[in-house]
Parts: sequence; C-alpha cells; structure tokens
Amino acid sequence: MPALYRSFRSSVPWLILSLEAVLMALSHLLFSDSKYVYISYSGETALHLQDVSHMLIFGFGFFLTFLKRYSFSSTGFNLLIIILGIQCSILMQNALCSPAMKLCVFLFFPCFHCSIGEAAVSTIAVVISIGAVLGKMNPMQSIVMTVVEIIVFSVSKWINMHFLEVKQQMCMMHVHLFGAYFGLAVSSRFSEPSPKSEKNASTPKSDLLSMLGTLFLWVFWPSFNSLEALEKDKVIINTCLALAVSAVTAFTLSGLTTKDGKFRMTHIHSAALAGGVTIGYAADSIKSPWIAMILGLLASVISIVGSFCLQNCLNPTLKIHDASGVHFTFGLPAVLGALTHVVFLVI
Amino acid sequence: MPALYRSFRSSVPWLILSLEAVLMALSHLLFSDSKYVYISYSGETALHLQDVSHMLIFGFGFFLTFLKRYSFSSTGFNLLIIILGIQCSILMQNALCSPAMKLCVFLFFPCFHCSIGEAAVSTIAVVISIGAVLGKMNPMQSIVMTVVEIIVFSVSKWINMHFLEVKQQMCMMHVHLFGAYFGLAVSSRFSEPSPKSEKNASTPKSDLLSMLGTLFLWVFWPSFNSLEALEKDKVIINTCLALAVSAVTAFTLSGLTTKDGKFRMTHIHSAALAGGVTIGYAADSIKSPWIAMILGLLASVISIVGSFCLQNCLNPTLKIHDASGVHFTFGLPAVLGALTHVVFLVI
Amino acid sequence: MPALYRSFRSSVPWLILSLEAVLMALSHLLFSDSKYVYISYSGETALHLQDVSHMLIFGFGFFLTFLKRYSFSSTGFNLLIIILGIQCSILMQNALCSPAMKLCVFLFFPCFHCSIGEAAVSTIAVVISIGAVLGKMNPMQSIVMTVVEIIVFSVSKWINMHFLEVKQQMCMMHVHLFGAYFGLAVSSRFSEPSPKSEKNASTPKSDLLSMLGTLFLWVFWPSFNSLEALEKDKVIINTCLALAVSAVTAFTLSGLTTKDGKFRMTHIHSAALAGGVTIGYAADSIKSPWIAMILGLLASVISIVGSFCLQNCLNPTLKIHDASGVHFTFGLPAVLGALTHVVFLVI
Repeated sequence: MPALYRSFRSSVPWLILSLEAVLMALSHLLFSDSKYVYISYSGETALHLQDVSHMLIFGFGFFLTFLKRYSFSSTGFNLLIIILGIQCSILMQNALCSPAMKLCVFLFFPCFHCSIGEAAVSTIAVVISIGAVLGKMNPMQSIVMTVVEIIVFSVSKWINMHFLEVKQQMCMMHVHLFGAYFGLAVSSRFSEPSPKSEKNASTPKSDLLSMLGTLFLWVFWPSFNSLEALEKDKVIINTCLALAVSAVTAFTLSGLTTKDGKFRMTHIHSAALAGGVTIGYAADSIKSPWIAMILGLLASVISIVGSFCLQNCLNPTLKIHDASGVHFTFGLPAVLGALTHVVFLVI
Repeated sequence: MPALYRSFRSSVPWLILSLEAVLMALSHLLFSDSKYVYISYSGETALHLQDVSHMLIFGFGFFLTFLKRYSFSSTGFNLLIIILGIQCSILMQNALCSPAMKLCVFLFFPCFHCSIGEAAVSTIAVVISIGAVLGKMNPMQSIVMTVVEIIVFSVSKWINMHFLEVKQQMCMMHVHLFGAYFGLAVSSRFSEPSPKSEKNASTPKSDLLSMLGTLFLWVFWPSFNSLEALEKDKVIINTCLALAVSAVTAFTLSGLTTKDGKFRMTHIHSAALAGGVTIGYAADSIKSPWIAMILGLLASVISIVGSFCLQNCLNPTLKIHDASGVHFTFGLPAVLGALTHVVFLVI
Repeated sequence: MPALYRSFRSSVPWLILSLEAVLMALSHLLFSDSKYVYISYSGETALHLQDVSHMLIFGFGFFLTFLKRYSFSSTGFNLLIIILGIQCSILMQNALCSPAMKLCVFLFFPCFHCSIGEAAVSTIAVVISIGAVLGKMNPMQSIVMTVVEIIVFSVSKWINMHFLEVKQQMCMMHVHLFGAYFGLAVSSRFSEPSPKSEKNASTPKSDLLSMLGTLFLWVFWPSFNSLEALEKDKVIINTCLALAVSAVTAFTLSGLTTKDGKFRMTHIHSAALAGGVTIGYAADSIKSPWIAMILGLLASVISIVGSFCLQNCLNPTLKIHDASGVHFTFGLPAVLGALTHVVFLVI
C-alpha cells in the first residue's frame, strides 16, 4: 500500500512537531519556578550525566544496529527517540510535583527532586523496549510508544517511591526490568515477521557495529550503576568484577554451545551485559568481591540458557517475537538481581 | 601537471618541518618563564580539556568525512591541522604577553593568561574553516591557512578583550562565527569544483561516519559551552535543552521538506548542532528553560531555511562554494546567538 | 589437521572456565579481608580508571584490527584477554601481600596497596605483547601467555619496588618496555608466517579502523601518564606537547620517506604514540615545555628510523617477526624515555 505509506510518512513530522509544541508549552507552564530543574545537579553528577548520555547515544545507538536494514537509520532515529524521551521524562518528574497538580491530586506528598540525569536513566527503559519491537513498528508507533512508556514508567516510579517506599536507587534499577517487559508486551501485539525476510537478517559488518555498542555499554556500566549510590567506589568495583566474570562466562558458554567451538557474537552481546544488570540491584550491599563474581557468573548462565529456552520453547508458544533478545539480555538478569536483593534484605 | 604536483607533494614535509622548528624555537624563547603555560589549569579544567579534545579529534574529524574522497585522509590530516593549530595558538597567547613584545608594542596592557584548553577552543575556528574549503585546497594551502587564521583570530580576540572589553567567555563563542566567515572568505577565492566531479560526491557509508561525528559533537557540546562559564550547571542544562529541541525540529523540518517524507542526514547534521551554537552566547543569562528551548527551535529553523536560501540564491550569485555547509551550520546560528545576546543585554 | 584443530577449539572454553574457577576460588581465599580491594580508590582515580579502560578496550582493541583477518575477532577477543588480565593482576597484587604468603616468604616487607586502576595498567603490557604475536598464536596460547605475563610482570614490579626502590610511578611506565620485549621474546619462538599469506595482509578499511584506535590512544595518553603523578597539570601539559610534536614529526618523516610524498598510516600509527611513551618516564621532572617538545621529536625520529632498520636489517637476522611493530612503537621509545630519566637523575 504505497499510497497509505506515503500519507503515513508525511504525518510523522506533524506528530513530532505537535508533540514538541505540547512539551514546550507544558514546560513554560510548569517551569515558572525554574528551580526545580536546577536542583540536585552537582559537579560530580554532571560527569555521570555525560556517561549516561554516552551509554544512551553511542551504546544503545550501536547496540541496535545489528539488523542489516536498520544500520543506517538506527543511530539517527535512536537520537530522536532519546531526545523526546528525556524531555517527556523531565516534564513528568515536574508534573508529579507541580503546584497545580499537587493541589488537585497529590496534596499531602512531598515533591521529589528532578534532574536531567534521572530523565536520561528513565529513557533507557524506552531504548530497551525499542530493541524488542525493532523491525515491526513504524516510526510513528515508536514515537507514541515512547511517550506512553515514559508516562507509565514515571507514574510507576512515583508509586514505588511514595506508597511502597522503595529507595530512589532501586527505582533506577527497575528501568531494565520495566523496559524489557514493556517491550515484550508491546511486541506480542504485533505479528511476527517471516523468519526469512530481509528485515530480520544481520550481516557480519552490522554485527561488528553492534559489538561496538556492547563495548560502549560495558565500559560505562560501572558509572551508571554508581549514579545514585552512596558508596560509589564499592559499587564501581563490584560492577567491574561482575561484568568481567560475566563476559568470561559468556565466552566459555558460547564456545561450548556452538558446534565448531567458535565464539558467537550474539551470545557475547547479551551475556556480557547480563552481569551489569544483575549486580545493579545488589552492588551496594555486597561485602566481599567473590559474591559479585558469582552473581556475574549466574547472570551470564541465566542469560545464555534463557536464550536457548526462550527461543526454542516459550516464544513460539506465547507468539512473542523478541528482535534483539531483550528478554534474556535485560529481563531475566534483572529478575535474578531483584531476587538477590530480596535475599540480601532477608539475611 | 603531474610534475608540478609531485614537486608540490615533496615540499609539504619541509613546510611542516620548518614550521615545527619555528614553533619550537619560539617556545624556547618565550617560555623561559614557564609559569605562563601552567597557569589557569585546575583539575576541573583538565576534564573539560579532554572533552574539547574529543570534540576536535573525533567530532570534527568524522564530521568532515562525508565526502567520499576524503573519508580516509580526513581523520589523519585533521589531526595534523589540529596539532599545528594548538601549538600556534599557545604561542600566540604567549607572544601577546611576552616581555619582549610587551616592551615594544603592548607596553601598557596587562598580560592575559593562557592555557591548552583555550588553545584547543581557538583551533575549532580552523577546523570549521577547513570544512568550507574541503575539496578545493591542497594540504600546503591548508597548513598556511591554519597558521594565518590562528594569528588573525588571536589578534582579534586580544583586541576584543582589551579595547572592546568583551568578556573572556564571549570571546570563546566568537570562534564559530569567526571560523565560518573566515572559511567562506577563503572559499570565495577558489574556483568552484564542477558539481558532477567525484570530489563533491558523498556515499551512504561516508554519511553515516559523518553522523557519528555529529553525535560526538552533540554529546560534548554542553561541556564545551560550560568551559568558561561561572554557573556551569545552568549552562549545561540550558545547552542540553536547546540541543534537544534543535534536533527534534531538525527531524520535523527534514521530514516536511523532502518529497518522500524521509529524514535527510544532511539536514540533521547541520540543524542538530545549530541549537548548541546559538545557545552558547546566551546560556549564562537565560533564566527559564523554555527560552532555551525556543532559541533551539529558532536556530534549527534558521539553519534549514538558510540552507535552502543560500544554496539556491545567494551562493550562485556570490560565487561562494561551501563544501560542508558551514555557513548555515555555524555562521547563521552564531549570528542569531549574538543578536540574542545583544537583546538580553538591552533588556 | 582439521581434527586436531577441532579438538583444540573445543578445549578453549574449558581452559577459560577452569582459569576463571581458579581466579574465583583464589579471590575467595585472599579477599577474606576485603579492604585490600577498596583501598586507594578515590573519586579522582575513578575517572582515571575509566580513561585507562577506554584506552584498553577501544584504543588497543582497534589498534590491533589492522590485519584483515583479525578485524572482526580482534575487538571481541581483546576484551577476553583484558578481562582475564585484570583479574589475574588484582589477584597477583593481593597474593604478594596476603597474610599466608607474607608469613611464608615476604615476612618483613610492607604490603603494597592494590587497585583496579593499577591492574588495568598492568594489562596494557599484555595487550602490547599480543600485538607482537598477532597472527601467529591461537587463542589458547594467547590465554596462557596472558596469565604467565601478568605473573612475571607483577613479580618484576614487586622486585623493582622493594629491592631496587623504584618509585610506584616509574613501575607503571615500565609497562610499555616490558610488554614490547616480552612480546618480541615470545614472537621469536614462533615461525614467521609467509609474507604473502593472507594472515599478514591489511586493507585500507582495516587501516582506517586502526587509525581510530590510534586516535583513542592519543587522546587518553595524557590522562594515563598523569595517573600516578603528583603534579598532574604539569604532566598533562608536557604529555600533550610531546604527543603534538611527535605526531607532526611523524607526518613530516612519513612524507619525506615515501616516494610519492604521501603520508603512510603505518608511520603515523607508530610515531604519533612514540612521544607519549617516551615522555611518560620524564614528564614529572621536565621544567620547560621545549624539553618535552624535543623529547617528542626524538621519540618520533627513533620510531621511524627504527622501523626501517629493524624491518630491513635486524629482524631478518634475528628471525623476529613483529606483526604490529611493537618494537619501534613501544620498545625503542620506552628505552629512550628510560635513558632520559637516567640523564635527568644524574643532572
């Protein structure tokens, strides 16, 4: 349907424009007292903000280039999604504590502070979700999903913090869990592309670019995990160790499970990051380095074993198509991390 | 004229060598009291220095790779230009306040401090100018242009600071304006390459590399704008917002102006950076975030509208050929920023 | 021998797995008092750690991609080597001061502190050595070499510090010298691949990727040299100047020595980094900038002249095959730097 497609393409800019107009109007209304934005932004966080933006723009930008058809547009379109996500997220943070809304709805709750760093972290949920639906959504649907997901995530975070009294830092970590399962839920509403279609194919070159993205994520992960932590040094070292063991295990399992004993890039992509996701929940409360190392090992194992089980058994049954494997890269390790956190709290 | 060309090629190393010898001899003479170099270099600036060098080497290095013929040599030759530019700039900063010259010419003016960070910023003017003459100059001419431009820029900055009493921070921002129009002036002295020649062509792959350069510049721009600012947090957040709105507008306008509704990389390159250039002049004095957002919008609009008008009307008339569009990427947004700054001062 | 090869491939994962198990068991035993790991890790060093990990993963990862056959696997396998190296290095640092070993062997020596930053620096030796044997070793041999090299380097560093009373900072700088000559020693035990084989070939594209690695190393070198320095500002500026002069000289000599006057990437790769290696030894004790500039010049000259002499005279005689030229990139400049350091001490 080329006619329909053309009319759709021409409506994308108008959608973006009206969305941006709404964002600017809202920020004019809400930011009358501009101190909200400038709060909680010390020199140290400025550095972490930069690290998170590197993760988002370079890391996830290249991580999603592994499909041949998306290598060119991925970096550019990813930028658009990230910018819209960050702006929505700043607005949501403020909306939930603006004077007007406070009076109406949340009269008795203290206002939580907001910052660009936090907004950037929330946007990670969107980018992970995009990974699950890559190749099935058109740009318009992606933009709508971005806005909806940011609103749902902000509200869920607000509920977590005010009703369930979860700590700020833990809310940050839910971003992987939320992003992965939101993406899978959206993905299950779309029909699976035929496995032989060009949209699903990857080339060695696009795999290499994806490896570059993984390396970016890998290098900035310790900085991301320590963003809200009190004992930053401990969190950084524990994350480094977990990531290291996780990557080593990924190489081992990849060599063992393939027939010719060669390492497969897909395994290394997902399993190397699994350690970072898992350790995020517990990095603060781990006392000896070897526990961090064992968590990294478990995360990597669960990620590779999960990738086999899911792709062969669960996904065909549930009719879920997970384009870039966010379920076993971010979902399962985050569940493991959350369980670990509960175990640590009980002990 | 291959014979002429060969003799020319063989003279490039000698030019570089003699230039370097002069630089080293001068630095021996001028740096007898070495305290000048080590002044104004605190730990925080060391970080910013690194950010500026990332912008220069990765950002502009890849930004200029969009011509097919220059993708390979651009990163390497760009490095040479940057190094020579930084060394010249350090020398010029010192020359304008060395004891000998002070006695002769500038007897009654106080010496201004100098640093590698400032020298790196001055070099941005050269890299922008190179963008305008790409594909028309040979290496020898580029090197001569680098030295001349740094000298002219240093003197103009010195005059700005001592006679017109412009603040240090504003002088930094003139770098875009100066670089763009110096480049255009030099470009108008060269004949335009035939539009069908291979020198002017770009490929999808080289466009993608150029996108990578744009992303690098985009990520480090807040850090660059806050280099000399007093209220760093405010400047960083305002720059982030302006860049975000500017990129969103770039996508919108790009989608609206192309026939098939697809995004064009060239638009996004130039318009996404326009916001950062414009906000640089006023980031310090903007009080509410929505003003920064509107400036970003205006910068993006002026950049894309400017690119149409210039390429179709002005450039053919004035016989200016602007290889990488520095006029509408850096020139026009800088003019807009300067106007905004004046308006703010009047208010 | 495909059968032998297959059985070998299948044993690589088991080697990694058992190595990792040993590492984890040892870290459980040694880190019972976990304070050792968390020592000497202030906020500032966290930044430097990140810079060193960028150098390792991006810089050396891409620096070694210049062989056509290794462009894809290099980035991935490099990651595995680095992770194993860092973990071994942390263990070795602790082993040399663990209570058990202290009682047995080093009863009367004070324990030296250990950190991830130092471990990352030690791993640079391994990556440099890998550069010398690229294309001759299989993955298994590389992993064994990593473990052996880290142990030998840690012991040599321990002897340097406790018996020869070399300063901590100097020990860091030995990493280039040690890495280059260890790699050459290992390389001389392997037969040279036939010069026409595909394993030894490079393509323009892989050369460009290698240039990207060089740029990464170049940008992070000042930060690496200042890692353990007391007067960080001075070291950073001296390193910047030495690197700048070194790169300019590399372009000059490359233009002079090639027949058509074109710049050759291989020259620029090695000579641009030579300045950083040399200045590392003396950056702390240099008083005027022009001495740093002359050292950069000498380093670049020794590197390019060395590359001619070694490749034409010495290597064929001694039957050493140096795949990525670590001898003249890291070895000779490090010798020059060490000599300079001795001269400065005498003066």
